[in-house]
Amino acid sequence: MQVEIWTDVNCPFCYLGKKRFNDALEKFEHADQVSVVHRSFELDPTVPTGISRSIFEHQSRKRGWSEVEVDASERQLGAAANEAGLEYSVSGRDVGNSFDMHRLLHWAAELGRQEDMLDALYLANFADATPLFGSADRLVEVAAGAGFDADEVRAVLDDPERYAAAVRADERQAQEFGVNGVPFYVFDRKYAVSGAQAPETFTQALTQAWGDRPAAPTLIADGDACGPDGCEVPQ
Amino acid sequence: MQVEIWTDVNCPFCYLGKKRFNDALEKFEHADQVSVVHRSFELDPTVPTGISRSIFEHQSRKRGWSEVEVDASERQLGAAANEAGLEYSVSGRDVGNSFDMHRLLHWAAELGRQEDMLDALYLANFADATPLFGSADRLVEVAAGAGFDADEVRAVLDDPERYAAAVRADERQAQEFGVNGVPFYVFDRKYAVSGAQAPETFTQALTQAWGDRPAAPTLIADGDACGPDGCEVPQ
Repeated sequence: MQVEIWTDVNCPFCYLGKKRFNDALEKFEHADQVSVVHRSFELDPTVPTGISRSIFEHQSRKRGWSEVEVDASERQLGAAANEAGLEYSVSGRDVGNSFDMHRLLHWAAELGRQEDMLDALYLANFADATPLFGSADRLVEVAAGAGFDADEVRAVLDDPERYAAAVRADERQAQEFGVNGVPFYVFDRKYAVSGAQAPETFTQALTQAWGDRPAAPTLIADGDACGPDGCEVPQ
Repeated sequence: MQVEIWTDVNCPFCYLGKKRFNDALEKFEHADQVSVVHRSFELDPTVPTGISRSIFEHQSRKRGWSEVEVDASERQLGAAANEAGLEYSVSGRDVGNSFDMHRLLHWAAELGRQEDMLDALYLANFADATPLFGSADRLVEVAAGAGFDADEVRAVLDDPERYAAAVRADERQAQEFGVNGVPFYVFDRKYAVSGAQAPETFTQALTQAWGDRPAAPTLIADGDACGPDGCEVPQ
């Protein structure tokens, strides 16, 4: 069974949801037959690249919040994160364009290490007060800290075409599904869960999707094919 | 709608099927909303790497065919290919381990150029008498001839881990679907067509799959999520 999780590094509920989903998956009896892939979703693709905005500036622009309101919201998120067993730095979070991070996540997926990259980016954003956005050097540092080869990371970042099509394909698929917020969990393209649910809700979703998982596709035409023993024209 | 096509460069019916499927797709009224991805299937993963076997040696080992029988079979495949509008060299075809070609196809997919790579490999195998298998130099030459950067191609070939996991994931999925021959076409994981069908059969399959294409997955739980306007706790 495949679970696709649309996510953005800018999204605190994605950070929280990842932990809660993983807690549910860990206890799921068919976990070894579940493949998880994280898909790209930019909360705000219009944010210029190359800059870091503090969460204060971001929320005051976007929602007209005061510093006190932003501070209260961060503390609330921090409490929820801590409760789920996650670190959270209630000050110093920044916001920015995440396209390059999504490209790195696709690259890491190719190495079979997408989770490691995502965890490193989440921690750098939510548990570390150092700015994360707007600087390729910082991304290289974060990825290298998670064991990725710094030169290879830089090579991906330096070539804006690498994995760009994959990021856009994920975003197009999200649009087709009508996704307008993340995290968004899709189970075998049949069921969906939106938001950072409690682990029990993820357990229910996993159980329901597992019970209804598709068998092989229905064969509607059979013809000339090649197999291990050669090429056959069926009778 | 997504069409996944499991294929192998060793497979003449895959070469033929690609043309016939594309002919059908070109005339399909929703073609612009169909995404095609080619997936890896090795007809014979046990063939050693680094060697090229002539089709004569291969068929005589595998099926005990005489040169006359192999020649007749190649001529038959050639006639079918020509009829579909494809070039085919009825002599000089070789057979070998295709794992590295599948890795290249995954790399090309990342660049949005998977079809170009596959066409180049098919032509080199079926329309060109020069051996294709067993030599990285030959693969670099073929890919460069299709406009890929020779150094980048060599870098992929030189690192056996690159895209290896992606190739194996495709093969595992094929196994789960019970696929034992290629080409194998899967429409939105719901319908399947096996073999190099006539274009009309592909047209029917496209039409049927389009009519039954899945809408968005069913939302079974809605919760705390972040969207373009910020992070919301739904009421």
